[in-house]
Amino acid sequence: MSKKVPFAEVKETIRRALINAGLQEEQAEICAAIHAESSADGVESHGLNRVPRFIDYVQKGWVDPKGQPELIRAQGSVEVYDGHLGIGITNALFASKRAVALAQEHGIGMCALRNTTHWMRGGTYAWKMAEAGFVGISWINTESCMPLWGSDVRSVGNNPFCMAIPHKDGPVVLDMAMSQYAYGKLGVYRLAGKQLPFPGGYDREGNLTCDPGAIEDSMRILPMGYWKGSGMAIVLDLAAAILSDGKSGSDMDAEGKGSCTGCSQIFIAIDPAIAETKEEAENIVSRRIAAADGAHPIKEGSRVRVPGEGTLARRKRSMEEGVTVDETIWAQVQALAEGKMDITDIASR
Amino acid sequence: MSKKVPFAEVKETIRRALINAGLQEEQAEICAAIHAESSADGVESHGLNRVPRFIDYVQKGWVDPKGQPELIRAQGSVEVYDGHLGIGITNALFASKRAVALAQEHGIGMCALRNTTHWMRGGTYAWKMAEAGFVGISWINTESCMPLWGSDVRSVGNNPFCMAIPHKDGPVVLDMAMSQYAYGKLGVYRLAGKQLPFPGGYDREGNLTCDPGAIEDSMRILPMGYWKGSGMAIVLDLAAAILSDGKSGSDMDAEGKGSCTGCSQIFIAIDPAIAETKEEAENIVSRRIAAADGAHPIKEGSRVRVPGEGTLARRKRSMEEGVTVDETIWAQVQALAEGKMDITDIASR
Repeated sequence: MSKKVPFAEVKETIRRALINAGLQEEQAEICAAIHAESSADGVESHGLNRVPRFIDYVQKGWVDPKGQPELIRAQGSVEVYDGHLGIGITNALFASKRAVALAQEHGIGMCALRNTTHWMRGGTYAWKMAEAGFVGISWINTESCMPLWGSDVRSVGNNPFCMAIPHKDGPVVLDMAMSQYAYGKLGVYRLAGKQLPFPGGYDREGNLTCDPGAIEDSMRILPMGYWKGSGMAIVLDLAAAILSDGKSGSDMDAEGKGSCTGCSQIFIAIDPAIAETKEEAENIVSRRIAAADGAHPIKEGSRVRVPGEGTLARRKRSMEEGVTVDETIWAQVQALAEGKMDITDIASR
Repeated sequence: MSKKVPFAEVKETIRRALINAGLQEEQAEICAAIHAESSADGVESHGLNRVPRFIDYVQKGWVDPKGQPELIRAQGSVEVYDGHLGIGITNALFASKRAVALAQEHGIGMCALRNTTHWMRGGTYAWKMAEAGFVGISWINTESCMPLWGSDVRSVGNNPFCMAIPHKDGPVVLDMAMSQYAYGKLGVYRLAGKQLPFPGGYDREGNLTCDPGAIEDSMRILPMGYWKGSGMAIVLDLAAAILSDGKSGSDMDAEGKGSCTGCSQIFIAIDPAIAETKEEAENIVSRRIAAADGAHPIKEGSRVRVPGEGTLARRKRSMEEGVTVDETIWAQVQALAEGKMDITDIASR
């Protein structure tokens, strides 16, 4: 059901599909790189697999490739932009670069972006900020897809929160939604006939369960850490909305458009060199990672990993051996690239 | 075993105990207020209950009441201080005020504090920043008290992360350690002969368990959200250390002193008025909270609450009816206040 395709071919195929969807050359180039990199890193859900839905949203007018970030307000180390429902990836890349530029000048910088669209893989932007040498923090609010703690209906977004630490061997990157599992992950387990390793939600009777199908049915996915993920989801939602003068998750619910349409995003960059030399910062990180690497593993012979370490290993393997793609989706994106298929053919399936 | 004592009496008794421990008048006044407020808010573990241990640390020289924050570096919207092992509460209050002052000038401000001591209840500082009208974010690193995901020995701190949103009816405040339960909470359940409502760690055989005593025995407390809390704990640790040029959790482990001795803390304040008027920010928050309040509850007749709402209710009740105190600890602190008991008598028990 899956096969390996060279990175350059994955990227080029996505690029042509996006050109056919009406994106400008530069937009298509940037977005194709980000989608292909996400697949290469093992985040297929927001890599290749997400391309058809992105094109569907463009056709529906929920994403407007002509929408560009417009500066609404600037004060000191902060800038606020309206994303005008432009392409989520290019808007978010722009905003993360602005945050870095502000941090270069002021030590810390924040760019708040309202009225934007799905940024695809959340970790992308914190990762880029860390690759630029800055501590990167970013989050987004989404429409409601998870019950608040104490509720049995979807009433808050899963609002991914990302935080990345620069390091010479590659950034340490947290990329974490507020639900214990994504809906996409539940589907993967169900199709494989497997139970979740840990409870992922409640069934219709209100029992915690590891059965992915029962959770898809009840739509009661579990916040990570129970009340903790629920609480964090709502403060992230509120902060994203008020700091961008943008929509909260419940405002998006009221509009009822697609995933993250009109959402609010926050990008904060911080210069580690404010406290010390870059070398000393590297030493602190290296020492801490060495301690983590040395932690006694549960399984003899295995090794404790820091966040992002597995991703870097997958990226290296994908670049050497090819990117793993789902054959059905790969065929769809190839057909879109060759202009042999219309998105409505795919979206209606 | 517990009784109610008027807030003013709790505060005054703690104040006198702190004076006897060698604190200056102003330090004792500030710390007594914070400890008493934490108990009034229902966080006894870091309120009254923590006073004897704080005094013990002062006697041991792990907290130096003469230590004052010293400015190490300033750049734009950022200031970095060395806390010189001063009193955790006064150091952290100072740093949160500096973050607010920087945010007033630049839109966002960060104060990083290294070489400081336990700040007691983590939420205090984000709460204060929100009461001043700012979005407040703060976190701390601690010595290792929790296994990293994949390890069976303590290898990362529980590194509390706090985030508060200003609101006219009282801030919305997340105050969240990276472990699912605190060790203190395990003890409370064990002493009450109760099982935890959700698994809180592994027993010695490596099975997830709700038995608090089995987890205290194995010391394998569970990160909130399994791999998620573990990953967040390590990025918070790294960021706190590099942004303050301070100690990481593993550096503290190597020193082997008491809880949070020499730790690193980060305080970020953001002005919501950068994006819009304060009124509009209030409207966004009110609308979002109303949606949360309206979420269908699991139990008919109950209500979904946002973080901080329960705390505000408890605070109100404590101010009206008195603060709930553990009688044994209350007697100890009274004896310390009256100079009738030495801390070594208590610490040796």
